[in-house]
Amino acid sequence: MNLAVVGLGLIGGSLALRLADAGHRVRGWDTDRGTRTAAGSTGIDVAPDLGDAVAAADVVVLAVPLAALSGAIADVAGLAPADAVLTDAGSVKGPAYAAARRAGLEGRFVGGHPMAGKEFAGFAAAEPTLFDGAAWVLVLEPDTVLAPWLRLAGLFTDIGARVVPSTAAEHDAAVARISHLPHFLAAALAAVGSSGGPLALSLAAGSFRDGTRVAGTPPELSVAMYRDNAAAVDAAVAETRHLLTGDPAELLRKGHAVRSAWPASIADRSPLNPSDPGLREQLLAVGREGGWLWRVADDRLSVQGPA
Amino acid sequence: MNLAVVGLGLIGGSLALRLADAGHRVRGWDTDRGTRTAAGSTGIDVAPDLGDAVAAADVVVLAVPLAALSGAIADVAGLAPADAVLTDAGSVKGPAYAAARRAGLEGRFVGGHPMAGKEFAGFAAAEPTLFDGAAWVLVLEPDTVLAPWLRLAGLFTDIGARVVPSTAAEHDAAVARISHLPHFLAAALAAVGSSGGPLALSLAAGSFRDGTRVAGTPPELSVAMYRDNAAAVDAAVAETRHLLTGDPAELLRKGHAVRSAWPASIADRSPLNPSDPGLREQLLAVGREGGWLWRVADDRLSVQGPA
Repeated sequence: MNLAVVGLGLIGGSLALRLADAGHRVRGWDTDRGTRTAAGSTGIDVAPDLGDAVAAADVVVLAVPLAALSGAIADVAGLAPADAVLTDAGSVKGPAYAAARRAGLEGRFVGGHPMAGKEFAGFAAAEPTLFDGAAWVLVLEPDTVLAPWLRLAGLFTDIGARVVPSTAAEHDAAVARISHLPHFLAAALAAVGSSGGPLALSLAAGSFRDGTRVAGTPPELSVAMYRDNAAAVDAAVAETRHLLTGDPAELLRKGHAVRSAWPASIADRSPLNPSDPGLREQLLAVGREGGWLWRVADDRLSVQGPA
Repeated sequence: MNLAVVGLGLIGGSLALRLADAGHRVRGWDTDRGTRTAAGSTGIDVAPDLGDAVAAADVVVLAVPLAALSGAIADVAGLAPADAVLTDAGSVKGPAYAAARRAGLEGRFVGGHPMAGKEFAGFAAAEPTLFDGAAWVLVLEPDTVLAPWLRLAGLFTDIGARVVPSTAAEHDAAVARISHLPHFLAAALAAVGSSGGPLALSLAAGSFRDGTRVAGTPPELSVAMYRDNAAAVDAAVAETRHLLTGDPAELLRKGHAVRSAWPASIADRSPLNPSDPGLREQLLAVGREGGWLWRVADDRLSVQGPA
């Protein structure tokens, strides 16, 4: 396939490296000159401009910061071939869909979100193994055309990701709980520790280190993530505050029960037939039950999920 | 030195292994037969009973669960030699001092707290390297006799720990923020994630894994820790709730600023003279400034702290 990766930071850089390893023709682009130079020096085929990067693409992956995503969607809509499939890698899906619809991309845009990250951003942190075994959400909306969705599902399962079907709204509510909330708890823990002065910070050890790790994320990224998903994150934060006013022993026991059962044991599930007329709902049911596609063939979608 | 280690779980087991490596004569004891057998099979000299374990000890280290600590202090007070120094390894220091005073151990009991742990308990998780570079709080109360305090400081710096002087109250307030609060945030994150159902738990990745790690701690341990330090933990939790009602972007920026500066760079500080009449206050000042002793000699206490 001819693939264009727009944005060569942690996610885009890792993806360009991995897709090229898998034998695809990959062209990359980034608005930052230093990033283009760094990516080019590792063998990524960096285009001279955005139009050139996407001109011959079968699939365009937008891996730009959330704050730049709506603009990038509009730009690429005017530059990519009319039959190219567009996807993104942003951590909030509602606003991406709104931008895609404004750009007239209904049916050609399939929102994506690889659940892989680090507290470090930029191409320097990129590595082709970033997505091994990671969940990669691909959004199914009522107007999503299944053929491009399945093409992307095949592309990402082929590089070792678990493709999780979800609606944009269900995705945004889920990641508010397990991916965006941790940034707030990490920040609060860091702040409360700091209020304890130098003694507290010198005693801080493993539980503080792990509990504050994602506070190392550049705040321009975490703030943009919050702004794009504010309602769902506010709800998750409010639920947290409520739990912190309840019985302490009960909360500690509940947390232990959940953590001890996570991650769930995995079992094979019945495969899906890609030509089944009920496929869309079947795929969404797989995601809601905690499952994913791990292989995509013309006649068979292989499924796994919690045992 | 003749050392007795009472309680051979994660902390006591690791300490017994490390102190024996350092050339001390170490006798161990645990109320659990299986733990005694496991410890004995790794070469730890396990005594036939508690009295035998402590009968010839210069130093007794109580590394029992918090819920058993007061009872163990009372038991050992009646069994150890009259000139033996007693210390403990519990994560809350106020109740340990109350128990030591009830047992008539003023001046012979020096509360301790190694800031090293894991989410797994028990001798099976013990390893002699657990304390390398770890902070080890040794409590200085107004009635602490300095000679046994310095003897313990030498013992623990010799095995690679950083000895942090602190009062019991200042220690308990500090660890509520950086060690006990993380258990509540981990439990809350696990619970909020679980409320998102199977989809949320299947998308959970690195930020959830790290943010919930300490929720793997056996709840009987974390609940006991809370009960012994409830007032300070409640205050830290209330401060957290307050931060979570404030401006989200400000909180994310504050958290990033704290985490980026932690851990602090280290510099050598002026050494202390162990015979200085102001030593007690000088030691407490070192701890309050985020510093520690890293070597204890007869004529010189070597100090490091934040640069």
